[in-house]
Amino acid sequence: MAHPLDALFRPRSVAIVGASADPLKTAGRPLAYLRKHGYAGRLYLVNPRYADIDGVTCYASVNALPEVPDVALVLLGADLALDAVKQLAQLGTPAAIVLAGGYAEIDANGARKQADLLTASGQMRLLGPNTIGMVNVADGTALSASIALELDELPKGGAAVVSQSGGMLGSLLSRGAAHGLGFSKLIATGNEADIDVCDAIEFLLDDADTRVITLYLESVRRPARFREVAVAAGERGKPLVVFKVGKSEAGALSAASHTGALAGADRMYNALFRQTGAIRVSTLSGLIDVSLALVASKPLVGSTLAILTSTGGGGAVIADACGVYGFSTPPPDLPTVDRLRAVLVGEAAAADRNPIDLTLANLRSETYRDTIAALVDSPTYDALIVVVGSSGLGDPKLAAEPVRAAAASSPKPVLVYVSPHALNIVSYLNSVGVPAFHTAEGCADALVAMRRPAVVRVVSFQPSGVDVTDVPTGQLNEAESLALFERFGMPSVPHCVALTPSEAAEFAHKRGRPVVVKILSRELGHKSDVGGVRVGVAPSDVASVCEDLRAQADDGWLIQEQVIGGVEMLLGVVRDPQLGLALVLGAGGINTEVFEDTALRLLPLRNSDPAEMLSSLKSGVLLEGFRGRPPADIPALFEAMQGFGQMAAALGDHLLEAEINPLFVLPQGQGVRAADGLVITRTRTGED
Amino acid sequence: MAHPLDALFRPRSVAIVGASADPLKTAGRPLAYLRKHGYAGRLYLVNPRYADIDGVTCYASVNALPEVPDVALVLLGADLALDAVKQLAQLGTPAAIVLAGGYAEIDANGARKQADLLTASGQMRLLGPNTIGMVNVADGTALSASIALELDELPKGGAAVVSQSGGMLGSLLSRGAAHGLGFSKLIATGNEADIDVCDAIEFLLDDADTRVITLYLESVRRPARFREVAVAAGERGKPLVVFKVGKSEAGALSAASHTGALAGADRMYNALFRQTGAIRVSTLSGLIDVSLALVASKPLVGSTLAILTSTGGGGAVIADACGVYGFSTPPPDLPTVDRLRAVLVGEAAAADRNPIDLTLANLRSETYRDTIAALVDSPTYDALIVVVGSSGLGDPKLAAEPVRAAAASSPKPVLVYVSPHALNIVSYLNSVGVPAFHTAEGCADALVAMRRPAVVRVVSFQPSGVDVTDVPTGQLNEAESLALFERFGMPSVPHCVALTPSEAAEFAHKRGRPVVVKILSRELGHKSDVGGVRVGVAPSDVASVCEDLRAQADDGWLIQEQVIGGVEMLLGVVRDPQLGLALVLGAGGINTEVFEDTALRLLPLRNSDPAEMLSSLKSGVLLEGFRGRPPADIPALFEAMQGFGQMAAALGDHLLEAEINPLFVLPQGQGVRAADGLVITRTRTGED
Repeated sequence: MAHPLDALFRPRSVAIVGASADPLKTAGRPLAYLRKHGYAGRLYLVNPRYADIDGVTCYASVNALPEVPDVALVLLGADLALDAVKQLAQLGTPAAIVLAGGYAEIDANGARKQADLLTASGQMRLLGPNTIGMVNVADGTALSASIALELDELPKGGAAVVSQSGGMLGSLLSRGAAHGLGFSKLIATGNEADIDVCDAIEFLLDDADTRVITLYLESVRRPARFREVAVAAGERGKPLVVFKVGKSEAGALSAASHTGALAGADRMYNALFRQTGAIRVSTLSGLIDVSLALVASKPLVGSTLAILTSTGGGGAVIADACGVYGFSTPPPDLPTVDRLRAVLVGEAAAADRNPIDLTLANLRSETYRDTIAALVDSPTYDALIVVVGSSGLGDPKLAAEPVRAAAASSPKPVLVYVSPHALNIVSYLNSVGVPAFHTAEGCADALVAMRRPAVVRVVSFQPSGVDVTDVPTGQLNEAESLALFERFGMPSVPHCVALTPSEAAEFAHKRGRPVVVKILSRELGHKSDVGGVRVGVAPSDVASVCEDLRAQADDGWLIQEQVIGGVEMLLGVVRDPQLGLALVLGAGGINTEVFEDTALRLLPLRNSDPAEMLSSLKSGVLLEGFRGRPPADIPALFEAMQGFGQMAAALGDHLLEAEINPLFVLPQGQGVRAADGLVITRTRTGED
Repeated sequence: MAHPLDALFRPRSVAIVGASADPLKTAGRPLAYLRKHGYAGRLYLVNPRYADIDGVTCYASVNALPEVPDVALVLLGADLALDAVKQLAQLGTPAAIVLAGGYAEIDANGARKQADLLTASGQMRLLGPNTIGMVNVADGTALSASIALELDELPKGGAAVVSQSGGMLGSLLSRGAAHGLGFSKLIATGNEADIDVCDAIEFLLDDADTRVITLYLESVRRPARFREVAVAAGERGKPLVVFKVGKSEAGALSAASHTGALAGADRMYNALFRQTGAIRVSTLSGLIDVSLALVASKPLVGSTLAILTSTGGGGAVIADACGVYGFSTPPPDLPTVDRLRAVLVGEAAAADRNPIDLTLANLRSETYRDTIAALVDSPTYDALIVVVGSSGLGDPKLAAEPVRAAAASSPKPVLVYVSPHALNIVSYLNSVGVPAFHTAEGCADALVAMRRPAVVRVVSFQPSGVDVTDVPTGQLNEAESLALFERFGMPSVPHCVALTPSEAAEFAHKRGRPVVVKILSRELGHKSDVGGVRVGVAPSDVASVCEDLRAQADDGWLIQEQVIGGVEMLLGVVRDPQLGLALVLGAGGINTEVFEDTALRLLPLRNSDPAEMLSSLKSGVLLEGFRGRPPADIPALFEAMQGFGQMAAALGDHLLEAEINPLFVLPQGQGVRAADGLVITRTRTGED
């Protein structure tokens, strides 16, 4: 059955609305590119000022077209585009692409124009506005004004690009082509008034030409839907490779809690990609390199690399770049050393170390072939990297051909790092299915991506069924916060709410040990910053301490036992305006602010998230019986994380942030205790 | 006055010993390259098998040469090279280059051959062995077999490359040329039997053609000399840009101390470069990008950037890459907005935000010129980045020419980021003095380098004059260690050495408070790991605790007061086999192992190092009066660091490692107290 977006991405007929006769103008290029790259379907132009352009009939209006096209490429400015879209929708056109800018990317007025455009499009699907269009490379259908389409031939292959920027679509096309990366589809989603990256990914799941989905993202408008389609892509074995701008967005999400201060927007995106198995790269070069490796590569199992080189420096550089990510380069096993020695000549060649240095004396095709075969056969290695040195500048085929032949028959990945500037070698090898890299970092990025499990099984925690309809809006005081946590199975340090100093003193006297005295208020966040917390208060002093703190004790006093032993952790929930709620686990107490040792995952959590989060913390070792201390109750900590997740699910859009710091994790079997709690809710939006 | 290495790097006469008649062979290429790149001096060949090669007379032996050449390029294998070098030295040849491999890079036997070669060279200076040679690009003198010299024309410019790998010399030449980086000298030092990177840098200090020194390093054999020449380069305004392999060498230097476990070889190199003002880059691309920026750039003062783009995505990518390093992109001031609005057309163009988006509608030469002028003139900005989008693929000159013109007349740096794959634009702009970049990361790396102070003033601490000739060899016990520290002004926690349990008890009873009881032994490092430390021991229990610990108390017991208050820090000295002694400051106590929050500098320290080290620590905030605690005695901490440095200087090659952990930094005015000390010395080598 045809996909609903087939008409857009595989059109049998196209109308270019507002086509220009000048092929140098933006509105003139799409016609030239459609023909240049071999569009085989029916083609119509709409422009009342011409009878024809370059032999193609021009119709005076959309309504004058002889058939309803599968897709209309609208090249008009924003005002005229609105009318054209309305007419196209009324005709029953399945899809339109609007290139014009000046919409929501500009200002509020532009956002209104965009809303009008979406309304006008009705049932018709809309790509854009503010898009450079799309190219179905496999079918030779170029519906785009990108000057990158000046390329004589578009390289076909398994990578589908989905980009929220038209300019970056062109950059990725030209950069990918220079490296020999082949494409199936190129889709610029622009302002995403209708079709967004999630729709594009969902379409590509069933696209037989696409093996890898390469994403340039500026924001994810529908994070829940993104999680669904990204996980589906992983399950289909079509990895997502993502470049997301915003690495420099370190800004805090909230100043009310430590959790908010530690959780920036970019960390939220890191969590989104990690939890969906999407591979985030930090550079555009990495986006190309990882994509071409995943299109071409065999699965990588393990982390040991053989490096075959004719340049000691090149071998050192690639070994170092991969070593940073935990790949090792052990020397060859003895049988392999013997096989290598049998084919190497010259006293400077090194068969018993890794990188294996051929030296210039061994740059012969048969020697490449035999040494590569020996290393691929060796049980010591999981993958082989061949380094092409400056000698490759003299005779590109000498290095490339034996590698290509060996890679084709190898069950293990064989990759190539080209040390000098020789993109002709890089692109040739990639075009014949051997992953080849212009930079050592790119090769290392690719190996890291190849090592990841292809499918990410996601099993989320179940909701709790706890009723929370009585939770007020705004900041809860600490006692209310602790009580809410207890509903979700997170016990507090023994405490009482005292409305008078004498009630406070009575609690302390019953305990017979020093206690903690805190003010209770819905107004104050960091109580200790305003002197609202006193620790180690002897029972006999409790009443007078309460009197000292009376001015800010709006709701009375919270009197808590002092916890001795246990590891202080932070557990929090914070809301990102775009991506929703996330859970934060971190070092607690004073370490929270000093060391900023935290892990963050979007809610809902996967079952594997709590253990992953804990193992990513430096302070995690404190829970494992560090330096003779008793091991802490990690299962109880995981239950508390689950409880926080269930609380967030129950409160939904009502919850703004919540935090326990410190959460004492007691020795094994003794559970956890919340010692300090903060919950802030907001007016329900009904959006979550 | 001529530099001693002038004969090597600016030869008026050259002899190629072992020249081959086959220009495709390694031994045939240098003759071809010398002629191809326009060597203008006198040229002799030595090869008994030919009368001439390509019209150049061949002499039968070195002794038959008609004059003593300035430099001999020896292309013979290792065995024949030894004889040739001996003869050349006997003739009084000033310098020779030996290309052959098979020396110290291979094994111990090769190392002996290399020692023989050095002996044979006598007074003659030697470049190599295992080098690809050197190229004086400014003079057109290519004494090298690198196939990268197949380039039709070597780009001349201000970057001198010094590489310990011949292969990387070729890679840097070809990669630099592709980006428009011009070179003054290219020098491969190979195995550095005689001339090493320090000699090459020292020569380049006085080389008028060299503005930037670009280094590929695998190790620094003379770290003290490197510090001298690197600092001298900074003072001459010739920055060093360094790519050093070894990032993945995270291995610990020692397991005896925490200091050693935290200090890997690569951190030592980071300190070496930081302390000399050398700019370390993490990628080869970065080496090219930073070099070309520093060759061409105007000084960068400040951190605000204007970004002028025709592609929203390209602008976002470059803003983000620079933002990661703390550069900001504020919107234009109102007068600048007015100037921009006066020249921009189209409703989608954005004059009041940054990146300033021209959109395709404004891609005209005059608009580029006027908008660049407005942004350069704006007081809001310290530098301007122009983004060339895919439109540049159609007309490279449209974007490049106005930028070139504007950059030439601008007092502020104007840089270019090329978003699509268009190295022709990158190389053109760089060749005319406008720094242009193929990657956003490269542009950001360059800006970071341009922002650094060019000259690093180095004033080291003075030695102390304290006598340490009595310090034994091996591991000192803790009391001995603390006593050694006290000689250098670092006070200990009040303690006594007890040889009997009753002496221990007596000390504790006098204090009248719980004490710490430790075993004293020269055998044990981490005493607490073997249960050799008891804290909070009541005076009445001290004797029996001493009895419990008797088995390992080789030298008796150390009884210490318990410190209350103060911030626990770690202070240590560790030795790297290559780079010598380094000082480590870190979070102390339990935090040392959990958070690995440390700073490291080579000894001797610069005066600015202690404050720099402290400010780089996350735990530094603990000393500043964190959360209502009293500010700690930071001056006393700095004195202790100086004391450790003086102790290391006094012990010299005798010292292996030393550590205080924890060092209690008490509140302001109260000083520091060493609570736990470890010193390990070694047999003096006389090398330091």
